[in-house]
Amino acid sequence: MSLLARVEKSLVTHVEAASGRGAPPRLLAAMQHAVFSGGARIRPQLCLAVSMACGDNAPELSDAAGVALELMHCASLVHDDMPAFDNADLRRGRPTVHKAYGEPLALLTGDALIVMAYQVLTNASKAHPHRLGPLMHNMSQGVGLPSGIVAGQAWECETKADLALYQRAKTGALFVAATCAGALACGSDPTPWAALGANLGEAYQVADDIRDVILSAELLGKPAGQDELHHRPSVANDLGLNGAIHHFQRLIDQAADSVPPCTCKDMLQQLVRLEAQRLIPAASYEACLKQAPKATLATQH
Amino acid sequence: MSLLARVEKSLVTHVEAASGRGAPPRLLAAMQHAVFSGGARIRPQLCLAVSMACGDNAPELSDAAGVALELMHCASLVHDDMPAFDNADLRRGRPTVHKAYGEPLALLTGDALIVMAYQVLTNASKAHPHRLGPLMHNMSQGVGLPSGIVAGQAWECETKADLALYQRAKTGALFVAATCAGALACGSDPTPWAALGANLGEAYQVADDIRDVILSAELLGKPAGQDELHHRPSVANDLGLNGAIHHFQRLIDQAADSVPPCTCKDMLQQLVRLEAQRLIPAASYEACLKQAPKATLATQH
Repeated sequence: MSLLARVEKSLVTHVEAASGRGAPPRLLAAMQHAVFSGGARIRPQLCLAVSMACGDNAPELSDAAGVALELMHCASLVHDDMPAFDNADLRRGRPTVHKAYGEPLALLTGDALIVMAYQVLTNASKAHPHRLGPLMHNMSQGVGLPSGIVAGQAWECETKADLALYQRAKTGALFVAATCAGALACGSDPTPWAALGANLGEAYQVADDIRDVILSAELLGKPAGQDELHHRPSVANDLGLNGAIHHFQRLIDQAADSVPPCTCKDMLQQLVRLEAQRLIPAASYEACLKQAPKATLATQH
Repeated sequence: MSLLARVEKSLVTHVEAASGRGAPPRLLAAMQHAVFSGGARIRPQLCLAVSMACGDNAPELSDAAGVALELMHCASLVHDDMPAFDNADLRRGRPTVHKAYGEPLALLTGDALIVMAYQVLTNASKAHPHRLGPLMHNMSQGVGLPSGIVAGQAWECETKADLALYQRAKTGALFVAATCAGALACGSDPTPWAALGANLGEAYQVADDIRDVILSAELLGKPAGQDELHHRPSVANDLGLNGAIHHFQRLIDQAADSVPPCTCKDMLQQLVRLEAQRLIPAASYEACLKQAPKATLATQH
């Protein structure tokens, strides 16, 4: 089974089990809308890839750890799309949760997904109770205070913010949590895996900035040009498109280099490079670079 | 030390420890605003009272379990006060979080408090790792799907809802989680303690309905008459004020009767009756009943 298929299968199983019986049907539908909408599942796949490199000795716990992180990611997208933040109508080509179900249910959907993420971890850890605490702590670090994705989003509400700190928290934290969770689920030391998550997270953030500039709304599945519209920091604006693409490639190289010694090192490095191509297909930025002179893009603030 | 003093002390300690260093300062301030605003701390006190009845053999874990439930309660208040739900300007006599810090930070404050609740449990459970799973599961049941407080709030977004189910989820679930957490933190069976939480939770919901009718906004610390305004189900409207007060007293009796055999049974029953008096001081409803004929109140829908 491919990593993606394994992730999708465990998402279905875990969400169903954690939903229980008798939940409000519209809340359930809104949560399903948020979770099953064609996401790339990059965080849980990363978690599983690291687990495989660490021996995958508790596959159900690794699955749950990946699912939990994906639910956290989905929760953050639902809340970030709301009018208080991006006020986005579309996500992955479909109406956002607040557009489809209204703001009250969107607010509750995010809350319920955060709780469900912890519930999924709890449910799966009965055979390995000593791994639950470290996995919970790791996930909370990726999401909460002081520098998880919620803190990252909150830096947008400050008058002064350190750009690197903001970006590490907003995107990087959950990638670091994903690689570390893969190790923790196997009872392994997560420390050697943090750098891979950090590099990939930063690369992903840069790719997102680039995609926001070069892709149309149709290809993005959400409105394009949002960083400029919301005056958000963007590497594509700071370095210009050409500079941003070189920066992205450097980060992918760093990510591949940071894979620690393990039997699957080659496979993992290959996965990193394939993911880079999925994020920014060479064809699309080459076409874009041909159309637009560097100078114009470099000053596009 | 009184139960309340013990709760306040552990809230300060745990929130500080779980906040870490370097979090966005306005998010931190908004979270402090949400948590330290003169709440009655009834859920953590209930948790601690049950822990004491069960031997209080892991006081730090009991403290953390109570703190975690209070953080969940605070998170739900922040989100419920937002324009998507109650659109309330005041809470406990002070501006609500979205009024003081804006909607984006209010949204993130609720999210961060939910994550922090789990973090507090994780941090405190290192000496008793086998108690973490059951405590986590218990808290998630009180908050998430299928019938925790988030599900309770979501029933307001359905066209059809079972009133008893709605009220049990909206308020009762976290009270049940509080009594059960007190037992679980001591490694005891939570089952005998669930009824106490359920009865108190229902009594608390009825008291809230009564207070919404009889107290002024100044005494409530938040806008009065909100149930009628938002067409929310209200026992005070269904049974009339007199009927609601009798129902409340019956629930308090049931709560006292449901305290299971333990060395502190008398003390716990006394606590239940004192809490009832705090919720609805006899003087205030007697004055109100004198002013308003029953018939008028009974038809006040």
